[in-house]
Amino acid sequence: MERRERRTETVIYSTGTVLVVLLILYFGLRITVLRPVQVIGRAAEAIGRGQLERAVEVGTGDEMGRLASSINDMSAGLRQRLALSKFVSGETLRAVERDSDVARGGKRARMTVLFSDIRGFTSFSESREPEEVVDMLNTWLQTQADQIREHGGDIDKFVGDELMARFAGPGHEGRALDAAVAIVEAVEALNADEHERGYHVAVGVGVNTGEVVIGAMGAEQRMDYTVIGDAVNLAARLCSAAKPGQVITSTETWQAAQATLDTVTGEALEPIVVKGKAAPIDVWRVTRRADAG
Amino acid sequence: MERRERRTETVIYSTGTVLVVLLILYFGLRITVLRPVQVIGRAAEAIGRGQLERAVEVGTGDEMGRLASSINDMSAGLRQRLALSKFVSGETLRAVERDSDVARGGKRARMTVLFSDIRGFTSFSESREPEEVVDMLNTWLQTQADQIREHGGDIDKFVGDELMARFAGPGHEGRALDAAVAIVEAVEALNADEHERGYHVAVGVGVNTGEVVIGAMGAEQRMDYTVIGDAVNLAARLCSAAKPGQVITSTETWQAAQATLDTVTGEALEPIVVKGKAAPIDVWRVTRRADAG
Repeated sequence: MERRERRTETVIYSTGTVLVVLLILYFGLRITVLRPVQVIGRAAEAIGRGQLERAVEVGTGDEMGRLASSINDMSAGLRQRLALSKFVSGETLRAVERDSDVARGGKRARMTVLFSDIRGFTSFSESREPEEVVDMLNTWLQTQADQIREHGGDIDKFVGDELMARFAGPGHEGRALDAAVAIVEAVEALNADEHERGYHVAVGVGVNTGEVVIGAMGAEQRMDYTVIGDAVNLAARLCSAAKPGQVITSTETWQAAQATLDTVTGEALEPIVVKGKAAPIDVWRVTRRADAG
Repeated sequence: MERRERRTETVIYSTGTVLVVLLILYFGLRITVLRPVQVIGRAAEAIGRGQLERAVEVGTGDEMGRLASSINDMSAGLRQRLALSKFVSGETLRAVERDSDVARGGKRARMTVLFSDIRGFTSFSESREPEEVVDMLNTWLQTQADQIREHGGDIDKFVGDELMARFAGPGHEGRALDAAVAIVEAVEALNADEHERGYHVAVGVGVNTGEVVIGAMGAEQRMDYTVIGDAVNLAARLCSAAKPGQVITSTETWQAAQATLDTVTGEALEPIVVKGKAAPIDVWRVTRRADAG
C-alpha cells in the first residue's frame, strides 16, 4: 500500500508539473510565435487582396521581426507596381502579367488606330502658369480617355497634347469611329465655360485601320509596347489633316465600320496627299447622324 | 529517511517527464513552426534583395502554408513591378519610388530635350517580315538608348521609330549635344553590314534647351510622366528639319553647351521657319571636331 501511495503521489506530482509547463509553453508560444505568424499571415493575405497600405508591426530583431520587415518591403514594392501600371497601356500590363520576363518582339495584327490632338495647345500653354496648363491638359485628356475606355479601346500613349489609341477585337473599326465622334462631342461640351477660361478647346481626330506590327520594342532596359507600320503613320497623318472638331478616316475604316455602326454618317472629302504616299488618299469626314442619340 | 527517499524519487520522475516533454515539444516546434518561419523568412529576405524567382514551398493549408502562399503571390507581383519599370522612363520610376500615390501635376524646369528619328523606316518596314522589322528597330533604338544613358540622359518615350530624351542637371546642354553626335556616329557604324541588309540606316537629331513643364499628365488611370512646352515642340521641329545624319540645335543650346563641351563644333545654318513661330529660328549644325576622339 505504501508503494502504491508513493506511486500515486509521484504520478500526481509529475502530471501537475507537466501541465504547468505545457500551459506556460502554450501561452508563451501564443505570444512569441503563433500570434505573430497569424498577424503576419493576415497582413500578407490582406496585401495579396490589394490592401497595399496594410503594414505589419515590426517587433524585435528576431526571425519574426525580420519576416514582418520583409513583408512590409514587399508591400511597398507592390504599391509601386500598382502606381507603375498607370503609366503603361492596358496591353503592356497584360503582356507583363502573361510573362514578367517580357522579351522584345512583334507580330502582325489587324486593328484600328486613333490619333487625337488638341489644337492650339502650345499657344494656350505659353501664356499660363504651369499648374493651369497641366490641369487643363489633364481635363482634356481625361475626357478623351473616358471615351476610349467606354468604346473598348486602349490608350497606347500620350505625346504631349496628343493621344494615340488602339482598337482591336470584334467591330474595332466601328468602335473606333464611334469613340472618335464621341471625343469631339465630349471636348466640345467642355467649352461651356470657355468665356471664363478665355480659350476654346477643340481636337482633330484621325482614324485608320490596317495591318500593324504589335509588340515590345526599344532598348532592353527601356521598352515600349506599341504598334508600328504604315497604317499607324497614316492614322497620324489623317489626324494632322483634320480641322479642329473634325474626325477624318480612311476608306478602309469607313467601309468596315458601316457594317456595325449606324450612329454616324460619312462624307467623302477631297482626296489628300500625305507624306510617303505617291497617290492621293481617299478620306471621309465622320459626324454624328442627325437622328442618332 | 523514507519520506526523503520518496521525495527524491518524485523529483527525479517529475524532472525526467518534463525533460522528455520539452524535448518532444522542442523538436515538434522546430519542424512545425520555427523551421517554416525561418524558411519563409529567408525567402522573404531573398525576395526583398531582388531574387524574385525565389519561391517558398507551400505546405499544408495551415497558417504557415497560407503565409507561404501569400509571399509567393507578392513575389509574382514584384516580378511584374520589375518588368513594368522597363516600360517607363527613369524619371517616372523615381516619381513612383518617391510617392507611390502619384498625383498628376507639373512644375517648370529648365532642361534640354533631344528628338531622334530613323529616316526611311516606314519604307524599310513595308517590305520586310515583322520579326525583321522589330529586330532592326530594336537594334537601332538600343544603339541610341546606350548613348543617351552614357551621357546621363533619360529616355522619355519611344514613338514608333522616334526617340525622345531629356537631359537635366549640370551641363545638360553639352551632354545632350555630345549624346546627339555620338548617336549619329553609333548609328552610322551600324551600316558596316548594310550591303548584307540592303538598307542604309541614318537618323536625324534635333536638340533644344528651354523652360518646360514636367510632371505626370493624362488621365487618372493612365498617365505619362513627361515634359510639355514650346521648347519641347521646337526640339521636335529641329529633328524634322535635320537631314539624315545631321544634328540640328538652337542658339540657346549651342551657346550654353560651348562652356562645357570641346569635342564638337557648330556651324550656323540658314535660319529656318517652323510651324507656330512667326520669325525664322537661328539653327546650328553640330558635328564632331576633327581633332576630337
